[in-house]
Amino acid sequence: MNKRVVVHNVGRITLIASMLFLMPLIVSLIYRDGCAFTFLIPAILMSSVGALCTAFRPADMTSYAKEGFVTVTMMWLIFSLFGAIPFLLSHSIPRFIDAFFETVSGFTTTGSTILRDIESLPPSILFWRSLTHWVGGMGVLALAIALLPNDSSGNPDNSAVHILRAETPGPTFGKLVAKLRYNVRILYGIYTALTLLEILFLAVGGMPLFDSVINAFGTAGTGGFAIRNASIGAYDSLYVEMVIAVFMLLFGVNFNIYYFVLTGKFLKILKSEELRWYLGIVAFSTFAITWNILPLYGNAARSLRASFFQVAAIITTTGFGTADFDLWPTFSKVLLVLLMFIGACSSSTAGGLKISRVLILVKSTLREIRSQIHPREVRMIRCDGTTVDRAVAHGVAYYFALYILILLFSSVLISFNGMDFTSTVTSVITCLNNIGPGLGKVGPSGNFADLSVLSKLVLIFDMLAGRLEIYPLIITLSPAVWRRRA
Amino acid sequence: MNKRVVVHNVGRITLIASMLFLMPLIVSLIYRDGCAFTFLIPAILMSSVGALCTAFRPADMTSYAKEGFVTVTMMWLIFSLFGAIPFLLSHSIPRFIDAFFETVSGFTTTGSTILRDIESLPPSILFWRSLTHWVGGMGVLALAIALLPNDSSGNPDNSAVHILRAETPGPTFGKLVAKLRYNVRILYGIYTALTLLEILFLAVGGMPLFDSVINAFGTAGTGGFAIRNASIGAYDSLYVEMVIAVFMLLFGVNFNIYYFVLTGKFLKILKSEELRWYLGIVAFSTFAITWNILPLYGNAARSLRASFFQVAAIITTTGFGTADFDLWPTFSKVLLVLLMFIGACSSSTAGGLKISRVLILVKSTLREIRSQIHPREVRMIRCDGTTVDRAVAHGVAYYFALYILILLFSSVLISFNGMDFTSTVTSVITCLNNIGPGLGKVGPSGNFADLSVLSKLVLIFDMLAGRLEIYPLIITLSPAVWRRRA
Repeated sequence: MNKRVVVHNVGRITLIASMLFLMPLIVSLIYRDGCAFTFLIPAILMSSVGALCTAFRPADMTSYAKEGFVTVTMMWLIFSLFGAIPFLLSHSIPRFIDAFFETVSGFTTTGSTILRDIESLPPSILFWRSLTHWVGGMGVLALAIALLPNDSSGNPDNSAVHILRAETPGPTFGKLVAKLRYNVRILYGIYTALTLLEILFLAVGGMPLFDSVINAFGTAGTGGFAIRNASIGAYDSLYVEMVIAVFMLLFGVNFNIYYFVLTGKFLKILKSEELRWYLGIVAFSTFAITWNILPLYGNAARSLRASFFQVAAIITTTGFGTADFDLWPTFSKVLLVLLMFIGACSSSTAGGLKISRVLILVKSTLREIRSQIHPREVRMIRCDGTTVDRAVAHGVAYYFALYILILLFSSVLISFNGMDFTSTVTSVITCLNNIGPGLGKVGPSGNFADLSVLSKLVLIFDMLAGRLEIYPLIITLSPAVWRRRA
Repeated sequence: MNKRVVVHNVGRITLIASMLFLMPLIVSLIYRDGCAFTFLIPAILMSSVGALCTAFRPADMTSYAKEGFVTVTMMWLIFSLFGAIPFLLSHSIPRFIDAFFETVSGFTTTGSTILRDIESLPPSILFWRSLTHWVGGMGVLALAIALLPNDSSGNPDNSAVHILRAETPGPTFGKLVAKLRYNVRILYGIYTALTLLEILFLAVGGMPLFDSVINAFGTAGTGGFAIRNASIGAYDSLYVEMVIAVFMLLFGVNFNIYYFVLTGKFLKILKSEELRWYLGIVAFSTFAITWNILPLYGNAARSLRASFFQVAAIITTTGFGTADFDLWPTFSKVLLVLLMFIGACSSSTAGGLKISRVLILVKSTLREIRSQIHPREVRMIRCDGTTVDRAVAHGVAYYFALYILILLFSSVLISFNGMDFTSTVTSVITCLNNIGPGLGKVGPSGNFADLSVLSKLVLIFDMLAGRLEIYPLIITLSPAVWRRRA
């Protein structure tokens, strides 16, 4: 591996990313909550580290996939470590492991929290906590690349391609790779515009501006950190719930769709199987759960409201809550857990397996059944009207296997914690899919505070594995990458 | 599909298989329990159906994989339907769905029961119930093929190969396909010899002969139907537990290993990675659980005894019980559930994914990670010293995907039953892997009696899917197979 180019790139991105601390710093100065220094210190530390790494000027700028994977992992770890500092310095979270857990949960847009009383935190800390969702949703590195000036030495897009490929969710990266930086800027533009639109809708509905911003951050990144202990349920407003539910679903849509909207390619939108399945699954699940929880809620309108919000919150892997679904009947709970696995569309800010991946998996599994009946028939699978390469389909099958193996192995490690079976298994499912709440002790009314250090480390690994789609993390941990080049 | 050849072959096998009813009939006459007719009637019915189908003499004896798949599925359904008749006629199980569930659970060597009081059943019914395990373990059709005289018309091994391939567990069928009938007879010989040896060991230890036979049937098929309400725990004997535990493990070994023992190919045994992993996983799990349940059992000897028996019972997917592991700490429970997934060796009588399949899956997943680091490097995976074909590895990955998809989808259907989350999920895991008990309401102290008809039908599907390794069942259900030939 070309270590020098990794260090150099990490340095450049760190330098830019350290500027993010200025936003909560300004919030702190406005609200005079005395936390300004808790952001200034990590900002200075992080930019120093960045500057130091940038000084490492490699003679050879060659960068392949593995350099991209390692850069992404390093960057996410560095950002999570520095990002934890404000929680520690402000005494909002006294223990390091908890602050690190909370920060990783933020950046990976998981939204699992170790905090029992969110409302007691200073405004700037709340702002920072939710800003991590917003940045993590579209990608820490994507943001840096979007902001990065073109580097005069070598071809900057060479390493940028590999970095973005490693960070972008979903089985295929699509055609947006061409004219990379230009497109990343467009995507971030759409992302920002949608976020501002949500802030506007919430503020117009009477929500305080600060709350509107925080909740929009949580929605946009499909993270789910709330500003109230009762999450979105605290506002007790149909308008707020519907605005947030609709925006959660919007942020779960493949961002290429918005690109097609902007460029007027409406035919391509109609062709999107992923979008059709996404909307279909949401509609089916909403009605199924509405019917299932009807006896609990008394009337159809109330059930529909609770069901729609929760389905949107879970399938987009946001994890906001208006009701404690742990108290719902088993059918609703199992269906929600199934939605946790599926997740929303690829190239959105959502976690989970992603619908396109599930589609490819199901189609190629059906093809495998067909090939048992007609062994000599060669049949290709199609998605969105185009043929899916066999290698892509095989890749999805192995990704799924790896994902389930990590899920099973993590569950064994978490079981040492002594929680019941349901809490043990769903804590892993919710973290690996970047959702937030699970069932039982880690359900909507519980939290992750009481877990052991080992459990928290395992779940931190799972959250990062889920957000970065496993490979970057495992490749960085594999010794083969770190051996000297021949 | 060549329907005539399927009907003809099903007929021939049905004719032979109907003779199995003679064994419990003799038991009934010896014990004078008045159940002789309950076996005579299905025997006559089944042989009549068999004779009728055999009369269907196809002009074209051509048979491919799909005919094999359909024959196997048909045969298992027919045998389970006729096999349920004795339970109904003897009033041991009054409802049809329950009798069918119990029979499928028997033949698929699952061992999940809907009976609350086993000890009240007539001896011949108990004998029949456990005989289904013994027959199902090595294969209903394998038995018929072993007993079948060579057919003068056409090449009998043509259809037999496809039938055996569809019924034999594990990812590869190995080299035993050659000289097929000869080898099936050898395998059934080894199977019978090991069963007789266990009966001898149990009887010598003071267990009544009848109990010894029944428990040996349950062990050999890795089924787990017991003759006492407290399963093997009822004997409260260290000797009995150790004999049964060791024999469970022996029946979980790949039967090719015994073939190598008989032919003196000891080097091949040492080369078997599957065997080494099997023994390693058993040893590791036994010690881990011994340590975990130590506080419950007070001393190491008692913990080791309980742990060793339960690990052997679960990994071989037998499901016999000496302790209620639902009361054990979460770590032990999660580890046992993990063992349920893994199962024992391929070409044994055990269920689960099979160790060789898990090995291929893990190795090919690791290869996939490597290929992300070195995209142009072509690397093969090896098992037992030989290269695993890429197509086999891909097949395993798709099998795993299909298996998990069935697991998730079944869980949703079972969740309508309203059991808690743990019971819902583990009822599917235990049936799909042909084990027997799950956790919670379907745990060692519970049973499957209270489940709805829908749940029982879903679990019947899962048990058959697990035993026949999914494809035969799904292919039989797919309309493409039933269309007229062009």
